[in-house]
Amino acid sequence: MDAQPTLLNQMIAAGHLVPTGVDGLYGRSGVFEDVIARFEALVTEVGKDDGAEVLRFPPAITRTLLQTSGYMKSFPQLAGTVHSFCGGDGDHAALLAKIDAGEDWTKDQCCTDVALTPAACYPLYPMLAAQGTLPDEGRLFDVQSYCFRHEPSADPARMQLFRMREYVRAGTPDQVQAFRAQWLERAKELIAKLGLPFDVVPANDPFFGRAGKMMKLSQREQGLKLEMVIPVANAQPTACLSFNYHQDHFASTWGVRLADGSLAHTGCVGFGLERLALALFKHHGLDVQGWPSGVRGLLWG
Amino acid sequence: MDAQPTLLNQMIAAGHLVPTGVDGLYGRSGVFEDVIARFEALVTEVGKDDGAEVLRFPPAITRTLLQTSGYMKSFPQLAGTVHSFCGGDGDHAALLAKIDAGEDWTKDQCCTDVALTPAACYPLYPMLAAQGTLPDEGRLFDVQSYCFRHEPSADPARMQLFRMREYVRAGTPDQVQAFRAQWLERAKELIAKLGLPFDVVPANDPFFGRAGKMMKLSQREQGLKLEMVIPVANAQPTACLSFNYHQDHFASTWGVRLADGSLAHTGCVGFGLERLALALFKHHGLDVQGWPSGVRGLLWG
Repeated sequence: MDAQPTLLNQMIAAGHLVPTGVDGLYGRSGVFEDVIARFEALVTEVGKDDGAEVLRFPPAITRTLLQTSGYMKSFPQLAGTVHSFCGGDGDHAALLAKIDAGEDWTKDQCCTDVALTPAACYPLYPMLAAQGTLPDEGRLFDVQSYCFRHEPSADPARMQLFRMREYVRAGTPDQVQAFRAQWLERAKELIAKLGLPFDVVPANDPFFGRAGKMMKLSQREQGLKLEMVIPVANAQPTACLSFNYHQDHFASTWGVRLADGSLAHTGCVGFGLERLALALFKHHGLDVQGWPSGVRGLLWG
Repeated sequence: MDAQPTLLNQMIAAGHLVPTGVDGLYGRSGVFEDVIARFEALVTEVGKDDGAEVLRFPPAITRTLLQTSGYMKSFPQLAGTVHSFCGGDGDHAALLAKIDAGEDWTKDQCCTDVALTPAACYPLYPMLAAQGTLPDEGRLFDVQSYCFRHEPSADPARMQLFRMREYVRAGTPDQVQAFRAQWLERAKELIAKLGLPFDVVPANDPFFGRAGKMMKLSQREQGLKLEMVIPVANAQPTACLSFNYHQDHFASTWGVRLADGSLAHTGCVGFGLERLALALFKHHGLDVQGWPSGVRGLLWG
């Protein structure tokens, strides 16, 4: 019943993904990249009248941000910190000797000030707080970046490095909930036009450990996370978009406030770009020239 | 004489770069990204008849690749390995206690199979070797990715995370040298048309330590690395492009062979995308609307 290896192997055989020897880490063909670029252009078109501020962060954040955000509390298993060699000539000789002997040399690496981005919107919140109280209309951002999650898997839809496009809204609870509701409708229309079957379901983030079980339950009960799921490479459909209402979680962490001094609310819609590309290849075939003309027209029209 | 802080501060004040609190790690405005996208489109146009195979790798490689490539021997100070939390509930409690107490928690992180990409072409070589001997005409690739180098600096042209676009040639020595000579001429023409002053100079990679001094000298003496330098943010001009002839360095490391069984040669031309964007802002002003019409026509045509 599990079709995972099949889609991954098909994508590799077609040259769309290039294996590296590590699960969840693949090169992409020019065609695969073009599908993502065209899908992103569609998303931009849908949101073009909203006046979003466009920002692009590199695939890394500060280690301070990782700590302050609470990510190590909620998702320590997924986070990646970046470590470097910080020694002199003698230490270097010892390092090379360990590599030659096949010994573990990585414990000697020093942690840098840099960590990998866990979600495209993470770098926004401290910036937003530093820029002062929100205007009455709130703010809206368009972000995208490669994200890292340490969860090696043979499922091509669960990559360790993948791109997430997001729109992020900050403002009053009403503004944020209206934003989320609007994007939910827009996404249903967009994904239907792309000929992909989908469902929208309540969901939760993968909170860690025993304490995380309560957080998962609470998030679901409050309806804070919805996912649009599409069959991709497994018996179970894969979450390809998510619609998140953070309430004042990020605003209270970073101090993002409305003009009246109260905490802002935030929310985001996230597009899992590799997952959406994989869904298109899964449902329309490995050769983009053979995709349905309506889908081709929408993407390349 | 040192104009570094000025350009960085100007770029931040104009909203083109967003500070994160860590030197060399910045967000980018939509305009900054558009300049890079348009510059890349120009590069693609220049090389469009060469039949390059387009590949895009994520900003990470396997740790095995980092070790095997010799990068830890030559540039250990610049490399980044990715580490994650690998414990259970008890370890997690200890981790959070350390963060709360302001103690170092990073030594408990376990090294993953993933390391950050040091140069856009690194993931190509093992793939190339795995795909068998080269055809008579050799092979040509178009790659781009975010790269990491651990060298925090207040110089905006020395970012820790930056993008490198490359064309990479594999074939006979003659094929590779002809490729490099052609791109050197193409680059001179392109950069001149963009209104940027430049010089082409012999250069070397930043080989580490005492042993590295010999390597630097040898690389220069053999003329294996040329850089196109452009004044950006310092008294000294900044290397914005490089033209590299690897001889059989990567081919022998990975086993890339010609049809006759001999080792291939490889070479690459690399475009430092953030540096080129910064050079354009430096020489033409912070407002892209005010850039010379010839430059605007070339980029936004």
